[in-house]
Amino acid sequence: MSGFDKVKRAGAVKQVTSHSNPLVKEIKGLVSQRKHRTQSGLFVAEGLKLATDALEAGWDVRYLAIGPEALENPIAQKAAATAKARGALILEVNTAVLSAMTRKDNPQMVVGVYEQRLHALAELSPSQGTVFVALDRVRDPGNLGTIIRTVDAVGASGVILVGDCTDPFAVETVRATMGSLFHIPLYKTTKPELKDLISKWPGTVAATHLKGSVDYRTPVYTDPTLLVMGNEQQGLEQDLADCCKTLIRIPQTGQADSLNLAVATGVSLYEIRRNHLEL
Amino acid sequence: MSGFDKVKRAGAVKQVTSHSNPLVKEIKGLVSQRKHRTQSGLFVAEGLKLATDALEAGWDVRYLAIGPEALENPIAQKAAATAKARGALILEVNTAVLSAMTRKDNPQMVVGVYEQRLHALAELSPSQGTVFVALDRVRDPGNLGTIIRTVDAVGASGVILVGDCTDPFAVETVRATMGSLFHIPLYKTTKPELKDLISKWPGTVAATHLKGSVDYRTPVYTDPTLLVMGNEQQGLEQDLADCCKTLIRIPQTGQADSLNLAVATGVSLYEIRRNHLEL
Repeated sequence: MSGFDKVKRAGAVKQVTSHSNPLVKEIKGLVSQRKHRTQSGLFVAEGLKLATDALEAGWDVRYLAIGPEALENPIAQKAAATAKARGALILEVNTAVLSAMTRKDNPQMVVGVYEQRLHALAELSPSQGTVFVALDRVRDPGNLGTIIRTVDAVGASGVILVGDCTDPFAVETVRATMGSLFHIPLYKTTKPELKDLISKWPGTVAATHLKGSVDYRTPVYTDPTLLVMGNEQQGLEQDLADCCKTLIRIPQTGQADSLNLAVATGVSLYEIRRNHLEL
Repeated sequence: MSGFDKVKRAGAVKQVTSHSNPLVKEIKGLVSQRKHRTQSGLFVAEGLKLATDALEAGWDVRYLAIGPEALENPIAQKAAATAKARGALILEVNTAVLSAMTRKDNPQMVVGVYEQRLHALAELSPSQGTVFVALDRVRDPGNLGTIIRTVDAVGASGVILVGDCTDPFAVETVRATMGSLFHIPLYKTTKPELKDLISKWPGTVAATHLKGSVDYRTPVYTDPTLLVMGNEQQGLEQDLADCCKTLIRIPQTGQADSLNLAVATGVSLYEIRRNHLEL
């Protein structure tokens, strides 16, 4: 990652007009390849709203690329000033460079590069939360992002990524979170570690399962609740289901085989928090 | 649509090995361009499950392209026989041709071309249904497909597309419905027509609105219920909101601004059907 290494914590402004600038190439790599994101520990979030969310939540910004339209926008100017004061490099770019970075015809006028935050399961303290959601091998970036957004909306405390999941820092995932990525802690773990956590969990452990015998509206969910969701194709694996005391099911009629994962998670979360949420 | 016109209702089997076959080009056009879908009144659904759903639900199949792996599969053989008996042309193709048709590296082994079904609002009979969902200018194919799937799962009766919506027959939308497209009637209408329908609606008309003063769990939803949802960016337009007697809101805490449209629709639908759904 030569482009990144050259300029670290510079807190400067740089005009970039060429597609072949190493920084443009590196950002392009972060947008398109998980390998680049994992190796560098960085990721890209598009749009002024996400930049504002990230800065307000205290995330480390490495670069903030600002297009011509955003240079005139007071909110973008403020975001750039805040980012620069925290050591970010501000890239003043033209629309063609933004397009090249993001591989989009109509790019957002602000593109930020942030440092990833992914916690180990040992950092999770059940007592300091209300509801955690564990996702076993979630595959779809849109589903993962939407679930992080919903977790934020219901006031739940974190998302646990179990096994081989889609990248939470992929551009599509980040976009689907609508900024909630910067508010909701993510934990990465393995199935054995999750089983261990489940065995010690102080509150309700509920898992949705197609063979679940309990209607999702029946249990008394005791804080902290751990909601375990299987993946899009296979649902919950049997050995994980066997560890969960409460196997719930959302009733379905009609001819659909199942619900979309993000919808099922949303319906379950609103039920779990039913007695806690008010207008 | 020359390729299609040449072979209509043929009920035959044809080997296709060349990318430049006019049928391959036409199917490619249906996959990639809304214009082609609208002009021909056709659409593409990928996968054996969707083909089986479509055939069982009595949809008209124009073409069924079958790849080498599916030729050995008894379910695919049966689907091909049923489609052929109903006048479809069966295309026996290689994987490269399937890739070209669907623009995918790992294509599904069955790709069907079906005739669109989109009803006028005049065909909608509120008395013959429990819940209908009206979507005002829905933009995201994944959201639309997921909503159609959820509507099916809760036993609701149809989806009304209001104004300039994303194409319900786009490949991504069809995929996200997971087959429910073939079970749930779709109605296409304009905002004035929807307002007229609302004014005559015999049951509850509920709309989700960020300024809604009623918790979504409060109303008694009277069948048939019409649930009106605004679009992803702007939410419900004020003039539409003014027509709806019950403006509901799903409580949110945390720092998310809003819920994803498909999640909000799912949570609302499960609440509306709360006293009707059982395991």
